[in-house]
Amino acid sequence: MPRPIGEDELEPLALGAWILGTGGGGSPYHHLLNLRQAYRAGKRVQLVEADELADGDFVAVASNMGAPLVGQERLKDPQTAARAVRMMEEYSGVGFRALMSIEIGGGNALQPLVVATELGLPVVDADAMGRAFPELQMTSFAIGELTMYPLALCDVRGHEVIVSKASTPHWAERIGRKVCVEMGSIASTCKAPRTGREVKDWAIHGTVSKAIRIGKAVLDARRRHGDPVAAVIEEDDGKLLLRGKVVDVDRRTTGGFLRGKVVLDGLDGDLGRRVEIEFQNEFVLATLDGEPAAMAPDLICVLETETGDAIGTEMLRYGQRVSVIALPPSAILTSPAGLTRVGPRAFGYNIEFKSVFLS
Amino acid sequence: MPRPIGEDELEPLALGAWILGTGGGGSPYHHLLNLRQAYRAGKRVQLVEADELADGDFVAVASNMGAPLVGQERLKDPQTAARAVRMMEEYSGVGFRALMSIEIGGGNALQPLVVATELGLPVVDADAMGRAFPELQMTSFAIGELTMYPLALCDVRGHEVIVSKASTPHWAERIGRKVCVEMGSIASTCKAPRTGREVKDWAIHGTVSKAIRIGKAVLDARRRHGDPVAAVIEEDDGKLLLRGKVVDVDRRTTGGFLRGKVVLDGLDGDLGRRVEIEFQNEFVLATLDGEPAAMAPDLICVLETETGDAIGTEMLRYGQRVSVIALPPSAILTSPAGLTRVGPRAFGYNIEFKSVFLS
Repeated sequence: MPRPIGEDELEPLALGAWILGTGGGGSPYHHLLNLRQAYRAGKRVQLVEADELADGDFVAVASNMGAPLVGQERLKDPQTAARAVRMMEEYSGVGFRALMSIEIGGGNALQPLVVATELGLPVVDADAMGRAFPELQMTSFAIGELTMYPLALCDVRGHEVIVSKASTPHWAERIGRKVCVEMGSIASTCKAPRTGREVKDWAIHGTVSKAIRIGKAVLDARRRHGDPVAAVIEEDDGKLLLRGKVVDVDRRTTGGFLRGKVVLDGLDGDLGRRVEIEFQNEFVLATLDGEPAAMAPDLICVLETETGDAIGTEMLRYGQRVSVIALPPSAILTSPAGLTRVGPRAFGYNIEFKSVFLS
Repeated sequence: MPRPIGEDELEPLALGAWILGTGGGGSPYHHLLNLRQAYRAGKRVQLVEADELADGDFVAVASNMGAPLVGQERLKDPQTAARAVRMMEEYSGVGFRALMSIEIGGGNALQPLVVATELGLPVVDADAMGRAFPELQMTSFAIGELTMYPLALCDVRGHEVIVSKASTPHWAERIGRKVCVEMGSIASTCKAPRTGREVKDWAIHGTVSKAIRIGKAVLDARRRHGDPVAAVIEEDDGKLLLRGKVVDVDRRTTGGFLRGKVVLDGLDGDLGRRVEIEFQNEFVLATLDGEPAAMAPDLICVLETETGDAIGTEMLRYGQRVSVIALPPSAILTSPAGLTRVGPRAFGYNIEFKSVFLS
């Protein structure tokens, strides 16, 4: 049965999604402001399970594309976010029954809810990454070899573009990225329409609820003066890699991505240990004392030790007291086809994937 | 009445269109090869007058977009050129009654004929520039403030993009150009569908026939060992600016355009005189002994003195014996609204337009 997402679940969702973003996905803060305003105006967003969809229903995958820092320069506009979905309806001729996220990590977890307040459609409790990833083709849909076009993009100035065909998911990413950059490095998008059957077969289920649970665990821990990081680990069967502080950040914007490395030295029980994490928007590879310790698609999350708040790769700075944790990825990401798309080699590291959770 | 374009008119069309390109528009050579092959296979292209269209007919404006030099690296593919038109039919839901050129200058004069051999549609004896210009918004349709979207682009690898809305013609150019660059700096396009009424009111009429006439005049002059440059001037009421040779070329590819300057010193009767011509793909401003002598939208053409062949801005080199001539522009280009789009100020020169043909 569809159930309304309560106003008291919005902050936990933003908090949990930011943690599942593994450093990327963009800050959910503006989306949270938009949702609170809509809720105060009496609007409510309904959450439906993938299994409640009919096979022939169509689901709109709504997200922002672009540079996270640019996205933070201006409050998101719900009408523009909704327009990308309307464009896709007009282009493809399908009527959408529901909305869903492309990635549950960061602001894009909330984008379909923002669109939902405009269009009155429910949101499916699912996404296509179970976290955040930097590129369009790093999805469970691409792993399932579903068609990744058409792709609709629009901006606040009224420009609209449809990538109606692409030879590969990677080419849809390449062409769409250039359009996005010309739109000012931030665009509202609607991905290829998905059928209810495809969402049931290939989406990663229950991730909206999971983000809310993680966010609630953090808030509960704060309320009882407990350990919010331990609460996240307990809630999602995670592992602590290091408690320490940021001692160096090397970060550059290149090729449309934020790339770099953060160095963390252990404190207290971890004194003398050093973790280095390389990132491409999201954290990709963590080494402990020089040896690979965690890698994508395992979720590597850097949280403020005191509050449990996630720290985005664009917000890392010297001196932050943080905890590095790993959370388990969805099974589809660690399948052979999954690792081809999102394993260490997909990010340019010539190493075999080894999960933190199998050691 | 529609009339078939004869096989013996193909070379004159290519020759005349290259002259009307005023240095740009891209070499028509590959198009000519494609057309000859189609004609040898028994195909024929019909030419119709704009007045033969019904007001409610739809006309497809088919052209290549991109860097002329890249376009010469590979023989054009008629199927890809036709696909852009099919994309537009599918997207807009209209059935096209005919094809036309966006610009009669250079290879784009022949592009609709190439598409016509694939789709079996007639070509309208008209274009939207009466010459070539470097940018999408420099058309009689834009001068008439017609809507410049949607714009369909595709490439040989099967990528397809539709710019479905743009806030201004210039923004359609900006976004389309980026897509084109990602497609390898050459794309087949179909511009916004035009109604028969719009073509009658705003297109520049008779320009296919005019290009054929100019080409025939050149070939006739060659055959009788006459002066091909004089023949062009006589055919199109042109003016000779200088006979001389190329003594310097400064050329760079920047911002997706070929920009630069060519310096020519007079020979024979023009000994001691110097013409300099600045170009942005096309020749824009000519000075004679330091004073402005001809400028867009007047057509400035650089022809081989001996053969009357046009020389594209990308083919200029030291030592060429050339004649610089001016040909009269269509009246719509010299209207106040026309000069805003295609006068010297549209190219960044802070001078009033003064026509060669009014002095």
